[in-house]
Amino acid sequence: MIRTFGVTADSQLEMDFPLEDLNKKPFDWYWVDFDQPTPEEWALLDSFFHFHPLTIEDCLDRLQRPKVDYYDGYQFFVVHALNAQTLEAEELDIFVGKNFVVTFHHSSVDELDLVRKKLQRDASFWERGSVYAMYQILDKVVDSYFPIVHKIEDHLNEIDDKMSFDMKHFSMDTVFNMRSDLLWLRRTILPMSDLIYRVLNSSRFDLQKHEYTYFADISDHLVKLAEIVESNRELTADIRDSYMAMNSNRMNRIMMILTIVSSIFIPLTFVAGVYGMNFKNMPELEMKNGYFFALGAMILIGLSMLAWFKHKGWMSLFKQ
Amino acid sequence: MIRTFGVTADSQLEMDFPLEDLNKKPFDWYWVDFDQPTPEEWALLDSFFHFHPLTIEDCLDRLQRPKVDYYDGYQFFVVHALNAQTLEAEELDIFVGKNFVVTFHHSSVDELDLVRKKLQRDASFWERGSVYAMYQILDKVVDSYFPIVHKIEDHLNEIDDKMSFDMKHFSMDTVFNMRSDLLWLRRTILPMSDLIYRVLNSSRFDLQKHEYTYFADISDHLVKLAEIVESNRELTADIRDSYMAMNSNRMNRIMMILTIVSSIFIPLTFVAGVYGMNFKNMPELEMKNGYFFALGAMILIGLSMLAWFKHKGWMSLFKQ
Amino acid sequence: MIRTFGVTADSQLEMDFPLEDLNKKPFDWYWVDFDQPTPEEWALLDSFFHFHPLTIEDCLDRLQRPKVDYYDGYQFFVVHALNAQTLEAEELDIFVGKNFVVTFHHSSVDELDLVRKKLQRDASFWERGSVYAMYQILDKVVDSYFPIVHKIEDHLNEIDDKMSFDMKHFSMDTVFNMRSDLLWLRRTILPMSDLIYRVLNSSRFDLQKHEYTYFADISDHLVKLAEIVESNRELTADIRDSYMAMNSNRMNRIMMILTIVSSIFIPLTFVAGVYGMNFKNMPELEMKNGYFFALGAMILIGLSMLAWFKHKGWMSLFKQ
Amino acid sequence: MIRTFGVTADSQLEMDFPLEDLNKKPFDWYWVDFDQPTPEEWALLDSFFHFHPLTIEDCLDRLQRPKVDYYDGYQFFVVHALNAQTLEAEELDIFVGKNFVVTFHHSSVDELDLVRKKLQRDASFWERGSVYAMYQILDKVVDSYFPIVHKIEDHLNEIDDKMSFDMKHFSMDTVFNMRSDLLWLRRTILPMSDLIYRVLNSSRFDLQKHEYTYFADISDHLVKLAEIVESNRELTADIRDSYMAMNSNRMNRIMMILTIVSSIFIPLTFVAGVYGMNFKNMPELEMKNGYFFALGAMILIGLSMLAWFKHKGWMSLFKQ
Amino acid sequence: MIRTFGVTADSQLEMDFPLEDLNKKPFDWYWVDFDQPTPEEWALLDSFFHFHPLTIEDCLDRLQRPKVDYYDGYQFFVVHALNAQTLEAEELDIFVGKNFVVTFHHSSVDELDLVRKKLQRDASFWERGSVYAMYQILDKVVDSYFPIVHKIEDHLNEIDDKMSFDMKHFSMDTVFNMRSDLLWLRRTILPMSDLIYRVLNSSRFDLQKHEYTYFADISDHLVKLAEIVESNRELTADIRDSYMAMNSNRMNRIMMILTIVSSIFIPLTFVAGVYGMNFKNMPELEMKNGYFFALGAMILIGLSMLAWFKHKGWMSLFKQ
Ligand SMILES: [Mg+2]
Ligand SMILES: [Mg+2]
Ligand SMILES: [Mg+2]
Ligand SMILES: [Mg+2]
Ligand SMILES: [Mg+2]
Ligand SMILES: [Mg+2]
Ligand SMILES: [Mg+2]
Ligand SMILES: [Mg+2]
Ligand SMILES: [Mg+2]
Ligand SMILES: [Mg+2]
Ligand SMILES: [Mg+2]
Ligand SMILES: [Mg+2]
Ligand SMILES: [Mg+2]
Ligand SMILES: [Mg+2]
Ligand SMILES: [Mg+2]
Ligand SMILES: [Mg+2]
Ligand SMILES: [Mg+2]
Ligand SMILES: [Mg+2]
Ligand SMILES: [Mg+2]
Ligand SMILES: [Mg+2]
Ligand SMILES: [Mg+2]
Ligand SMILES: [Mg+2]
Ligand SMILES: [Mg+2]
Ligand SMILES: [Mg+2]
Ligand SMILES: [Mg+2]
Ligand SMILES: [Mg+2]
Ligand SMILES: [Mg+2]
Ligand SMILES: [Mg+2]
Ligand SMILES: [Mg+2]
Ligand SMILES: [Mg+2]
Ligand SMILES: [Mg+2]
Repeated sequence: MIRTFGVTADSQLEMDFPLEDLNKKPFDWYWVDFDQPTPEEWALLDSFFHFHPLTIEDCLDRLQRPKVDYYDGYQFFVVHALNAQTLEAEELDIFVGKNFVVTFHHSSVDELDLVRKKLQRDASFWERGSVYAMYQILDKVVDSYFPIVHKIEDHLNEIDDKMSFDMKHFSMDTVFNMRSDLLWLRRTILPMSDLIYRVLNSSRFDLQKHEYTYFADISDHLVKLAEIVESNRELTADIRDSYMAMNSNRMNRIMMILTIVSSIFIPLTFVAGVYGMNFKNMPELEMKNGYFFALGAMILIGLSMLAWFKHKGWMSLFKQ
Repeated sequence: MIRTFGVTADSQLEMDFPLEDLNKKPFDWYWVDFDQPTPEEWALLDSFFHFHPLTIEDCLDRLQRPKVDYYDGYQFFVVHALNAQTLEAEELDIFVGKNFVVTFHHSSVDELDLVRKKLQRDASFWERGSVYAMYQILDKVVDSYFPIVHKIEDHLNEIDDKMSFDMKHFSMDTVFNMRSDLLWLRRTILPMSDLIYRVLNSSRFDLQKHEYTYFADISDHLVKLAEIVESNRELTADIRDSYMAMNSNRMNRIMMILTIVSSIFIPLTFVAGVYGMNFKNMPELEMKNGYFFALGAMILIGLSMLAWFKHKGWMSLFKQ
Repeated sequence: MIRTFGVTADSQLEMDFPLEDLNKKPFDWYWVDFDQPTPEEWALLDSFFHFHPLTIEDCLDRLQRPKVDYYDGYQFFVVHALNAQTLEAEELDIFVGKNFVVTFHHSSVDELDLVRKKLQRDASFWERGSVYAMYQILDKVVDSYFPIVHKIEDHLNEIDDKMSFDMKHFSMDTVFNMRSDLLWLRRTILPMSDLIYRVLNSSRFDLQKHEYTYFADISDHLVKLAEIVESNRELTADIRDSYMAMNSNRMNRIMMILTIVSSIFIPLTFVAGVYGMNFKNMPELEMKNGYFFALGAMILIGLSMLAWFKHKGWMSLFKQ
Repeated sequence: MIRTFGVTADSQLEMDFPLEDLNKKPFDWYWVDFDQPTPEEWALLDSFFHFHPLTIEDCLDRLQRPKVDYYDGYQFFVVHALNAQTLEAEELDIFVGKNFVVTFHHSSVDELDLVRKKLQRDASFWERGSVYAMYQILDKVVDSYFPIVHKIEDHLNEIDDKMSFDMKHFSMDTVFNMRSDLLWLRRTILPMSDLIYRVLNSSRFDLQKHEYTYFADISDHLVKLAEIVESNRELTADIRDSYMAMNSNRMNRIMMILTIVSSIFIPLTFVAGVYGMNFKNMPELEMKNGYFFALGAMILIGLSMLAWFKHKGWMSLFKQ
Repeated sequence: MIRTFGVTADSQLEMDFPLEDLNKKPFDWYWVDFDQPTPEEWALLDSFFHFHPLTIEDCLDRLQRPKVDYYDGYQFFVVHALNAQTLEAEELDIFVGKNFVVTFHHSSVDELDLVRKKLQRDASFWERGSVYAMYQILDKVVDSYFPIVHKIEDHLNEIDDKMSFDMKHFSMDTVFNMRSDLLWLRRTILPMSDLIYRVLNSSRFDLQKHEYTYFADISDHLVKLAEIVESNRELTADIRDSYMAMNSNRMNRIMMILTIVSSIFIPLTFVAGVYGMNFKNMPELEMKNGYFFALGAMILIGLSMLAWFKHKGWMSLFKQ
């Protein structure tokens, strides 16, 4: 579907007019949105707008890296919107010229509806032209990253806070899945941040001072997002290491219990086994207090073992 | 609450006057502090001061990243004060113009009281103007980071020093919590350091030579703080790795004890079990010295096992 | 084998003519391909083309690092094609002058056939000259990296997605082999990316604006490839760490089972052993209900142990 | 204590004269050393020398980060001497002007005595002026780092070389302590290296060509020290990882022994236990060769288990 | 020993003449090699050549870091040759002036013989002057690194390839020793690479265009060496992690076997122990089929345990 939006020379807003009107009427500026276009509509990028073949190739191939390229008469942006459910990056291609914006995307991008609604609200918005529209699109796309990133951050901080006293109520699986999600998000956020940085610092894209301020605001957000992502990647690594340290500790305690029990009873069982043998001639068995001497010896052996483990500091583990 | 502080053209200090006086009297410079302001007071940022909408948005949204933006007639700073109890960053927004400072914060920031007290102490202080007031605020905010960071550093050094000879009296939990705190502190300290660096090196913020010296002093402190934080993050990692190495060593020793005890007594118990069987026809049982031969064989087996473990170097673990 | 390709002054395409024709006829530009050449053919680099001895040394030594060197009248490129089966890098050396391209390679490089086919398809292609031919070669070489890298990425994402709920159906061996392959690919992709970056930014290689656009497109691809490789290296590390955490968890559970079973039955077996001893005088054995008291005591001991393990939270592992 | 050192206009050396003489006689250049000064002596920094309040603050606060600041008429250096016993950094503050050096330190700094002795040895030294004295101080301070760093390096190389064939004669504790020391040394060496780098490259500190050569020599040493420290930090990590790999290997071997012994004898003991039961009616017990059949079965079971372990390749561990 | 090599004004080569001839005859350029010189010969650096004291200090102190310093009339290089057996770095100091080269080394450096032989082969070589001789020395020194680095790389790739299917035939010891060697090699290769980079990019060392090409060729080699070293350091880390994962897996399997055997037979042995007790009144013992009931119960218990382990998926480990 192709959606049009234009501001005429006398500052009137027109919407959803046929593409051919662009050649007939004088527009101050216009915005054409290729929303999940058909192959017939793809062809218009070349036949109607005459964009460079490399940009059209980038539109049609899915998931280019976020970037900006400079052509005569327009800039070509590739930006990534994020699907909040799947965290999939969805490519949005934007051509910005002095008096036009053309957007192109294979999946639906809700942020464009928000921009459209904002622009049509008041003439003071729709009169600001194509760079302002472009700013609005980038702003909404980047704003939509925040709930995704903050959800992960909040979940991780919650796990980090409670893990010290209660290891049962969370699973490392969740942590590793979030770590994997953060890696994925970084592949969108870092190139987006580079892109805006290049817009701000390139001499080829000459922003007015007030436009500069707006793009700098987006840059702030992306720098902050990149910091959160990096910082939370480190936090997942710390949680993992903390988990491994606790596990290793717990393993030590489990093995200590097994070793104490085995080391005490296996020798005693051997002694009992000796006096359970059926040899004819075993003098101890005939002794009157043989049994009691044997019991006493066993208790002595057991207590010695216990004392040795206590001396080694192992008994503390039964107190905790 | 809005707190005012002004120096009149004849170098008199006035405090806590109504905001409207700023339009009536000529002030050399003034400082307006929005201390945990109400929404009605928020509105003054726009209606009275006419600050840029993006700066007002940053004031109202909580926890922007520390940064500095340049506008016509003023600079806009976002800085982070740290809550010493929770280590939470608390945003403090500062507008600095040639003859004014406006501060804005949602939580109480004690450092501002310190600055106010210092400035009102002597005319030599209050006559230095808005950039000096700004320096005082930044200086006090950054100074308040030190006790927080040093407390963690001292605790970690203490753990590091004693962990080699006594693993019982500290918990890895504490170390991991400090590691997590350091990660959090870094998210305040690094952007603050960037901010001051940009103030020092930007041509847009033209500092007098003596002002430069003061901001360079704050920069020193932030660089040192950043170094301590990074260095202590590495120290926590080293403590963790050291702990894991000790744990793995201890596990080896625990398992050696279990293996020695089991390997000696399980075969002996088997021999005793054999002669405990009730078969009618077991010639050994009838032998006169059968029992003593059996005992001797058992002692021989046990000693051979011991000798083998001694040969393997395992017996040293009973000496330690 | 030496394969020639030339465009004459009157825009005719000639192919597979003898090398000596280059001196006889005027060519607009030509391309000479040394395809797995014999030592006699090697000699032509010096005797016929008079290339610099250092470039010839680089051609003959196998596997130089990707790079570009600038000489009077030509640039010398070393690029790496990848063998899709073995992931081996195969060196392709390219000399590019104003009106010629000379390629040299010890193994067969399929991408060159693709370029040759594309160029001979239409005069609009073969008339574009040597830099365009060079672009086509680099483009095809870099395009051939994608299926290799994407195959690894897809396989890793599949493992990452299913590993949380089912650890049996993949092997860490596969993951480590892919990690090793990624390390190897990086040794081709990073220097290739540097190479194109230097072509784009060097003042010595003065590209026309439209040529610049084409090389920038290759640069995009290499940056994206480098990002995928780095990101997947991190993913393999995350999968490995996740695997280690699961393994350590599983080990804990195995040891818990062993400890529970041993701690319950070893003491009971000892008690049974005591009453299996053959001492003449063992009063309990003579008691009427001795056996039942003993059984009761054993059940009591067993249940106490179970209760203690339940209290410790260990019994949950039999439910899962 | 305040120690003075001055070269008069006629190239005479004077030492330990009262501070007031500096105002009375014309000195070519002089050096005043505040050696562990009293608070009364501190005051002279302000009252006699009129240094900037921020530099005095840095002198009095302990352990500033190494740095250099530029003031009108002098540079202010903070450098760190290292205490060879404790590895503690000891702050040494240096003011260098065209015709004076003022040093200030709370602990004794032996390197200053070395410099003093060198300078007073010959007029050719004491005539070189304040920058040469400054160079001598920095040189001696940095030279004193080498024995400390080399001692750690040698010890680590020794451990690294012998650890492969003999794990008993070193302790990981030592390695972790050296790792912690290296972290600490880095906090002195890296900022010192930055400091010299800034001296060499700053336009504000205009060194003569021959002076440049001397400071470049110190810079060499610091770069080498920084490399040794980093490289040895990595070596400690490698030793730790090597130790963990050996430990994990050893654990495997310990558990294999336990598993082999237990898996062979526990089933056999069970069989013996069965024929040790006291049921009235147990036909096997009455058989003439029952005992020998039972023994044979047990030997068969034991050998089968052994064969299975041998098949698994476990038996090799008894050979080593 | 001092070895001389000179080209006279009429392009004649003279060798091994006394040092004093340099003052008597006019030489186009000359090369003096201090090969493992005596202290008397050391003195000539100062008395005959008048080199700067700092360069002489660097010659006499062993193992300076590779570097280049610029003096009036000459450059001073410190480079490292590698001893192929011990991997020890051996310092080679080179002074290069417009018409001379002076080399100084405490150990024998074979590469210098190669250079000497090459230069004396043909007038076309010996006429190229001191910078060409210098290039030949650096080239031969760097070429000698390759066999050392490639030997390690090949060995590691071999281990990496076969480790997945056969863990017995290599030792982690070898891997850790190679990792340690790579760390050591890096300490030579990285500073050598910096050195050549500075030669290429410094304005103070003005190379002719054709000289530039030669030094760029050495730079290529060092960049490639640095890449191999880094890449192989990562490979050793990957092999180590892979080894740890396999070890942890193997440990799990060992413990599973122990747990299965113990969990089945320890309870059964207990049951046998109960009926081996000698109580007078044990009704079961008197039952006609008591023994067979007991055997049946034991078989039932054993099979239940087996079924539970099978249900848990543990039995698969006996198949592999
Ligand atoms: Mg992507
Ligand atoms: Mg996952
Ligand atoms: Mg994923
Ligand atoms: Mg903002
Ligand atoms: Mg924001
Ligand atoms: Mg945040
Ligand atoms: Mg923040
Ligand atoms: Mg925590
Ligand atoms: Mg936290
Ligand atoms: Mg200071
Ligand atoms: Mg400080
Ligand atoms: Mg410190
Ligand atoms: Mg290569
Ligand atoms: Mg492999
Ligand atoms: Mg490989
Ligand atoms: Mg493209
Ligand atoms: Mg692409
Ligand atoms: Mg991708
Ligand atoms: Mg310090
Ligand atoms: Mg320690
Ligand atoms: Mg310490
Ligand atoms: Mg030196
Ligand atoms: Mg040195
Ligand atoms: Mg070194
Ligand atoms: Mg690690
Ligand atoms: Mg060295
Ligand atoms: Mg070693
Ligand atoms: Mg070594
Ligand atoms: Mg080469
Ligand atoms: Mg090479
Ligand atoms: Mg290679």
